Amino acid sequence: MRIAIVLFDRFTALDAVGPYETLGRLPGAETVFVAERTGPVRSDTGALALTADRSLSEVPDPDLVVVPGGPGQSAQMENGALLDWLRTADRTTTWTTSVCTGSLLLAAAGLLRGRRATSHWLALDALKPYGAEPTGERVVSDGKYVTAAGVSAGIDMGLTLVGRIAGDDHARAVQLLTEYDPQPPYDAGSPEKAPAHLVAELRAGSRFTLT
Amino acid sequence: MRIAIVLFDRFTALDAVGPYETLGRLPGAETVFVAERTGPVRSDTGALALTADRSLSEVPDPDLVVVPGGPGQSAQMENGALLDWLRTADRTTTWTTSVCTGSLLLAAAGLLRGRRATSHWLALDALKPYGAEPTGERVVSDGKYVTAAGVSAGIDMGLTLVGRIAGDDHARAVQLLTEYDPQPPYDAGSPEKAPAHLVAELRAGSRFTLT
Repeated sequence: MRIAIVLFDRFTALDAVGPYETLGRLPGAETVFVAERTGPVRSDTGALALTADRSLSEVPDPDLVVVPGGPGQSAQMENGALLDWLRTADRTTTWTTSVCTGSLLLAAAGLLRGRRATSHWLALDALKPYGAEPTGERVVSDGKYVTAAGVSAGIDMGLTLVGRIAGDDHARAVQLLTEYDPQPPYDAGSPEKAPAHLVAELRAGSRFTLT
Repeated sequence: MRIAIVLFDRFTALDAVGPYETLGRLPGAETVFVAERTGPVRSDTGALALTADRSLSEVPDPDLVVVPGGPGQSAQMENGALLDWLRTADRTTTWTTSVCTGSLLLAAAGLLRGRRATSHWLALDALKPYGAEPTGERVVSDGKYVTAAGVSAGIDMGLTLVGRIAGDDHARAVQLLTEYDPQPPYDAGSPEKAPAHLVAELRAGSRFTLT
């Protein structure tokens, strides 16, 4: 199974690395990081670059596509080269997936029309103009389209898909290998659980500078 | 706060990216990926490279060090350049940390002697010859030394440290930003919880080829 993980300037690194670390452990997986141009692609903080080993045009027919999100997603919403590639790749995929605001790129490519999908909680409403039906679940499947909520949700999506593709036992083995037995020291990982003032600060963009 | 995240050939990507995505959101954080030589450093699957923007010698006095693990750790256990750098950096750090088998590198540098520490569950016993006291907890603090269990545990460690450094509110905000509300589809993330046959397969190295 050929897995293409898409990179673009100012993506969020964990959006891409969570699915990589899980889906990349599928038996026979051939994972490739792709971008418009090969070479290092900077993530949103500017402190980290991941290498795109292949250009989009070199990988026209992956079996599984992962589109991460991040602050850089908005600059890609009218990038014809990327959106065309997503539409073309989608013709051959058995799974077309996203993490975080990556779903907005799938939506902009016209792939989520009439489908249930999710995104980062701050971006859920932005799915609607593209005809997608936003839901607040962490991992949302609608046919072959699987979207995950913000950032860390890509790990849960990856394990879910490993289970569907290679069976529960292999997914459990990947979970054990990555010691994914989460014990967050706080319980503030969703807008329903976090203190209201923090939800308001993130909505206002006043706590973090997301470049 | 200057955060140095160490890369070496065949590290496990999520070990490094979990702490990066959390600690890198500290107010005033200046995160830098370092390695013996600058440039792309390949992770364990071979499918992903992260860029080291600075060489070890260019960053002699970080405030916080993160050492990831991975199959490549064993080849570093007698790498004088890396171990010397760890010892030197440790003189100025306020926190010296590791994820997964990265703790074995801290141990080999002599930094965990007489200290409680953890590692990937498959590698816990390997801490003992270095005078460290292995524990099965997910995040272990002993003074300024904070070690995390395997791979994904670096996210929990990162959030824990963000709370200690910048306060609970900021840690909760980082958790909310990264939507870290884990909902694993299975409950097999530790050797106590996973089916015994999978634990045995991972111990025998028969399911995954870790290069």
